[in-house]
Amino acid sequence: MATATGISKWPLIGSVSRKKYDSANNYFSKGFSQSKIFLRNPSMNSSPLIFHEVGAGHTHMLKKTVINVLTPNISSPTTTAEFLDAWNDDYNGVVIDPDSLPISANAFANALRASLANWKLKGKKGVWLKLLLEQAELVPIAIQEGFKYHHAESGYVMLTYWIPDELCLLPCSPSHQIGVGGFVINDKREVLVVKENCPCSCSGVWKLPTGYINKSEDIFSGAIREVKEETGIDTVFLEIVAFRHAHLMAFENSDLLFICMLKPLSFDITIDEKEIQAAKWMPLNEFMGQPFHLEDPMSNKVIDICIAAHEDRYSGGYIGQQLPSKLDRKLSHLYYAESK
Amino acid sequence: MATATGISKWPLIGSVSRKKYDSANNYFSKGFSQSKIFLRNPSMNSSPLIFHEVGAGHTHMLKKTVINVLTPNISSPTTTAEFLDAWNDDYNGVVIDPDSLPISANAFANALRASLANWKLKGKKGVWLKLLLEQAELVPIAIQEGFKYHHAESGYVMLTYWIPDELCLLPCSPSHQIGVGGFVINDKREVLVVKENCPCSCSGVWKLPTGYINKSEDIFSGAIREVKEETGIDTVFLEIVAFRHAHLMAFENSDLLFICMLKPLSFDITIDEKEIQAAKWMPLNEFMGQPFHLEDPMSNKVIDICIAAHEDRYSGGYIGQQLPSKLDRKLSHLYYAESK
Repeated sequence: MATATGISKWPLIGSVSRKKYDSANNYFSKGFSQSKIFLRNPSMNSSPLIFHEVGAGHTHMLKKTVINVLTPNISSPTTTAEFLDAWNDDYNGVVIDPDSLPISANAFANALRASLANWKLKGKKGVWLKLLLEQAELVPIAIQEGFKYHHAESGYVMLTYWIPDELCLLPCSPSHQIGVGGFVINDKREVLVVKENCPCSCSGVWKLPTGYINKSEDIFSGAIREVKEETGIDTVFLEIVAFRHAHLMAFENSDLLFICMLKPLSFDITIDEKEIQAAKWMPLNEFMGQPFHLEDPMSNKVIDICIAAHEDRYSGGYIGQQLPSKLDRKLSHLYYAESK
Repeated sequence: MATATGISKWPLIGSVSRKKYDSANNYFSKGFSQSKIFLRNPSMNSSPLIFHEVGAGHTHMLKKTVINVLTPNISSPTTTAEFLDAWNDDYNGVVIDPDSLPISANAFANALRASLANWKLKGKKGVWLKLLLEQAELVPIAIQEGFKYHHAESGYVMLTYWIPDELCLLPCSPSHQIGVGGFVINDKREVLVVKENCPCSCSGVWKLPTGYINKSEDIFSGAIREVKEETGIDTVFLEIVAFRHAHLMAFENSDLLFICMLKPLSFDITIDEKEIQAAKWMPLNEFMGQPFHLEDPMSNKVIDICIAAHEDRYSGGYIGQQLPSKLDRKLSHLYYAESK
């Protein structure tokens, strides 16, 4: 039976509502079983479909159905245009197969137009079109036909087309960067601090090491890595003690910054000069006493929480526990407070 | 003095390291002061620059410097190509002005090539190029010149070019969707649950209402909105009790799902049939006793935490407190555990 991956796989929490759920999720993950449907040609939509089982993948959680078209042998230009290879999603939408797009821009334009007309007739809703770097020529053609951008990564751009004459229910593109900050304190009550290279107005301030996590990296391992990269100090993760949610940051997106308590395993500092200007162990009182921190309510509160957590006066430390979920058959981390 | 917005504005936490910090952040936020530099033409790079102060914005946190070119009056095709309007970022990179790109594809191609050659000579590093929907024709030209995609939203695609012959230090595109799940329990120990419309294998299970938060929406308000949209129930936010971090979800990105305790303010359910099949108040024991939940370690753990929180046996509930930060001059929410 077709099913959705992702957040919607967690039935306790419930699947996200349709307009937020990423239907494409089903198709851009790996390991789905696959079956193909061949349509003889666009004028034969009402003919019986020829089903051809192409292969079975190593999971039975999703069936991917590809709709192909055999070469048409009729001459009218409007009816000879081939349809694009595509498969249906669970939300009455269509995902165009990125691996079998016509190479010629003209053929693509014709096939796209014919396919859109066909999908409109069939009452389809969202259309997903992934174009690789080497298919960039096709971008203006798709935009010309009414596609919009959805999201992009280095090697591709994803475009979408919402067919119905009603509010678009397609999910948004990823909206958040995830940052981590490491609070590392040693037995002498000295905090591991860094001074940035960047020419910003806070460049004179000694701060906690921070950074963004990498793709598919966990919060706790990202914090450990950042501290190691910037200062050379090895640490173990103890707990998350707070997080900040800020909007209208880079590209007007948002970010979440998780403050992690880390225990140092080494003490000799080696800085990465490309990343930072200096790093050192700084007495806690001196760190807290920096004028910038005293005058900044956000910094002040975070320092209070970190000190309380260090002194075992804080109950909100979240550990991370890896747990399986039946539906996505994956291990994910759940962060929560252990009973103390 | 030029400074960075975003995560790096929080000196307590420290600015993120250069390779993760989004230098474009400086330029796509609003309200920066601006000054323009006019270069006479590309062959006059060594001539004294004519500085022309165009205007001062309402914040002095960043100076945006635009490099313009006066129309060249020399005839060689290679030297007459105008440079693209652009400004420098804090990381020795360049941001091409999206509002003054040549309309003709040819002129764009020539100016882009000339500009890249010029920036290479000057030792520039990252180049940012934002192309609006109506500039889609320019996408294949930029890709041809070596640009890659960075990220996209409905109306534009951002492209980047990394000039140095070394590891690209530009930040990644946003990588996370943020989901919220609402645990709403009434005085009769009944939990507000929904059954999804989607054809997935968990469609028979009664679940918590969930969804993704909207752009720039806060976690607590997203949870309240989702519950209201799906069930018609009004609630107030009490606390976040846990969150799950899952990878390789939609488009192989990650998501964070925050479990929020909400207190119901109304009791009559009205469902949104587009989003869900059914909703009801379900006795807690019956909710917990669903075979799916019993067999799913992730769901099980979350239910345990929610019940403990409801019964005041959980210390890890995070409230959200809005706090100002001096550097970004913004209010953001800090989530942490209040002392009980």
